[in-house]
Amino acid sequence: MENGSTKWGFFQGNEEPKAASTLTVRDVLATIMENLDGADQRPTIPLGHGDPSAFPCFRTTLVAEDAIVESVKSAKFNCYAPAGGILPARRSVADHLSKHLPYKLSADDVFLTVGANHAIEVIITALARPDANILLPRPGYPLYEARADFSNLEVRHFDLLPEKGWEVDLDAVTALADDKTVAIAIINPGNPCGNVFRYEHLQKVAETARKLGILVIADEVYGHLSFGSNPFVPMGVFGSIAPVLTLGTISKRWIVPGWRLGWIAITDPNGILRKSGGAVPQILENTAECFFSKTVNLLREAADKCYDGISEIPCITFPNKPEGSMSAMVKLNLALLEGIDDDMDFSFKLAKEESVIVLPGVAVGLKNWLRITFAIEPAALEDGLGRIKAFCRRHAKKD
Amino acid sequence: MENGSTKWGFFQGNEEPKAASTLTVRDVLATIMENLDGADQRPTIPLGHGDPSAFPCFRTTLVAEDAIVESVKSAKFNCYAPAGGILPARRSVADHLSKHLPYKLSADDVFLTVGANHAIEVIITALARPDANILLPRPGYPLYEARADFSNLEVRHFDLLPEKGWEVDLDAVTALADDKTVAIAIINPGNPCGNVFRYEHLQKVAETARKLGILVIADEVYGHLSFGSNPFVPMGVFGSIAPVLTLGTISKRWIVPGWRLGWIAITDPNGILRKSGGAVPQILENTAECFFSKTVNLLREAADKCYDGISEIPCITFPNKPEGSMSAMVKLNLALLEGIDDDMDFSFKLAKEESVIVLPGVAVGLKNWLRITFAIEPAALEDGLGRIKAFCRRHAKKD
Ligand SMILES: Cc1ncc(COP(=O)(O)O)c(C=O)c1O
Ligand SMILES: Cc1ncc(COP(=O)(O)O)c(C=O)c1O
Repeated sequence: MENGSTKWGFFQGNEEPKAASTLTVRDVLATIMENLDGADQRPTIPLGHGDPSAFPCFRTTLVAEDAIVESVKSAKFNCYAPAGGILPARRSVADHLSKHLPYKLSADDVFLTVGANHAIEVIITALARPDANILLPRPGYPLYEARADFSNLEVRHFDLLPEKGWEVDLDAVTALADDKTVAIAIINPGNPCGNVFRYEHLQKVAETARKLGILVIADEVYGHLSFGSNPFVPMGVFGSIAPVLTLGTISKRWIVPGWRLGWIAITDPNGILRKSGGAVPQILENTAECFFSKTVNLLREAADKCYDGISEIPCITFPNKPEGSMSAMVKLNLALLEGIDDDMDFSFKLAKEESVIVLPGVAVGLKNWLRITFAIEPAALEDGLGRIKAFCRRHAKKD
Repeated sequence: MENGSTKWGFFQGNEEPKAASTLTVRDVLATIMENLDGADQRPTIPLGHGDPSAFPCFRTTLVAEDAIVESVKSAKFNCYAPAGGILPARRSVADHLSKHLPYKLSADDVFLTVGANHAIEVIITALARPDANILLPRPGYPLYEARADFSNLEVRHFDLLPEKGWEVDLDAVTALADDKTVAIAIINPGNPCGNVFRYEHLQKVAETARKLGILVIADEVYGHLSFGSNPFVPMGVFGSIAPVLTLGTISKRWIVPGWRLGWIAITDPNGILRKSGGAVPQILENTAECFFSKTVNLLREAADKCYDGISEIPCITFPNKPEGSMSAMVKLNLALLEGIDDDMDFSFKLAKEESVIVLPGVAVGLKNWLRITFAIEPAALEDGLGRIKAFCRRHAKKD
């Protein structure tokens, strides 16, 4: 058994997880961060992230903190829980969602997950079968693509239309689908687009799904974070048109993404899907409305500030004012810039020269766009917008 | 779009996750529970579970509770964390494990997971590749089989030998392995067998792995819960013989399975694997030794009580005294019983007639054995053993 004689072998590992994780938002941001100029004395301004919880203005409510403390101190919740979550927690999510639906969900309609990311994993794993395909939005949230790849579920992309307030291109959906299509996913309020779908549009999505005989995955991770003219309407409202799997989380509305609590709710009052196939109550029930409205107001002001700031920059345009979620897509006009190849190059150089981080659109499926996250401290946002403006002016084509 | 005309379709779902989850410990226990006699006034005695945290004598340490409370109240840990855990937590697990190793782990060797169950998922997913196989112990922990099935990783079972204190049948391991074998998994202290491997035996396991060129997955979920003659030796001690992936958790030693914190540690000082391919520090560092020794003493007394009680029952035998973990395997002698078909039948009838739950061995890979969990309140354990005795006397073959 001399050293070196052993042939260490066959455990180089599964290639699939690696392939699936190419070009995640996290990786792209990490690469951009490496481009920062260490000598820049100014604070780095992160407009590429998806997590406002580090900023004092976005601290969660005491109700949520106290609920956790009380649960831990009771020693009643140290046990293994059932895989889908304990009954009172599931019931509380069901009640919470039912407030905005024309029918009542029961605890059995709800499964708790380790954040909505885990909910995406569970749903994609459950839907994947040989030859099946799924319809995903472009731009979108790349974890859907990564998990579909991993489960060998074919992805077909439909566009969100900037000129129509990022509405789903429903003609494209109909053209893409066939008898092997299992579902269409929509994200509302929209990440990365910052739009909020109108009631009528959601209804049309449901009707299209019905026509195609597929289910709707409604990613409502940013649910209730709407601050424009369209109120947030849960897709489950149309659950009697087509079966809807609703994804939710406390990550965004309560601003505690590190706590990892999400859910899947089966909003399917006709039971189409069924035919085929401690602290949570306190947090969901006792959080004061004013905590939520404070958050939404902060986001509205930030979105306005962002919109106004970008409007002063000739080479970047908003197709429309952001109305929901925590980020928005803006379009780069490369023709007005000198020596900038594409969105990736823009983000790299902006990081290096101005210590401002934005996400290249290519990471969410839209080349030569940028995703700007406005959910940061207001002063930092203002500073960051100023630096983007300076950067663009410096790189403007002279003629 | 009349109701009924829609052909709801192709989303009946992926069959694999369902197939993989057949005969889980949880399912078997749930079925046995359904067999309880509702009219029985006596408290039900659960000797089939894997979770002592509900019993007052097994309450976790205040240090752990306070660490969580402080982290929540600091609002510093509400953010998304890196996928493998935050650096101070990983470093603290590395330091904690290094205390018992002949070399030092760094934070980079440790990945935090959602309990050790998640660690099993991650490892099996990473190792699975076309044509590969993995060597798993029988009896064992069925999640390994379920995840291997799900990832299309072929399972080959080697026996643990009751007559040799549940040691690994190393000849069988050598015979089973081929050039497509990626790893051998061992569980130490043993679930479900309640054994603790000797230093020399672990060394032989490592040498066998080296000979075969495969890695060792060391499930040390019950690490340090040893109370017999063999001290607990971490497999990582032999990491220079063969690369070891060590799985750990706070579920068992700290008795907080609901908190879902586990880890994977790469204990591979020669770097064979690398060539191919808030509250945690407080909990791990500040828990007083006397909390652990109290738990181990409780378990030792419970194991002794269980061993003595079973010894008085002719049709059930312990191959050896339990020395670690929280449960042990006992053998049924059906020849001494009247009208009991097998272990499943025994468990069903015991539940119905005596309101005592034990796990049929078939659920962990060993037909006509039983797994008895002794980690419950001492008085309930005594009561339960008395009822098992009464049941066996009543069903004894008369001659
Ligand atoms: C569209 C979308 N879905 C899901 C998630 C995941 O949310 P969670 O923190 O609950 O895992 C995010 C997080 O940014 C998201 O933007
Ligand atoms: C052998 C073994 N491995 C892993 C686990 C899972 O532990 P965790 O609670 O950390 O997920 C258990 C739980 O009982 C176990 O017995």
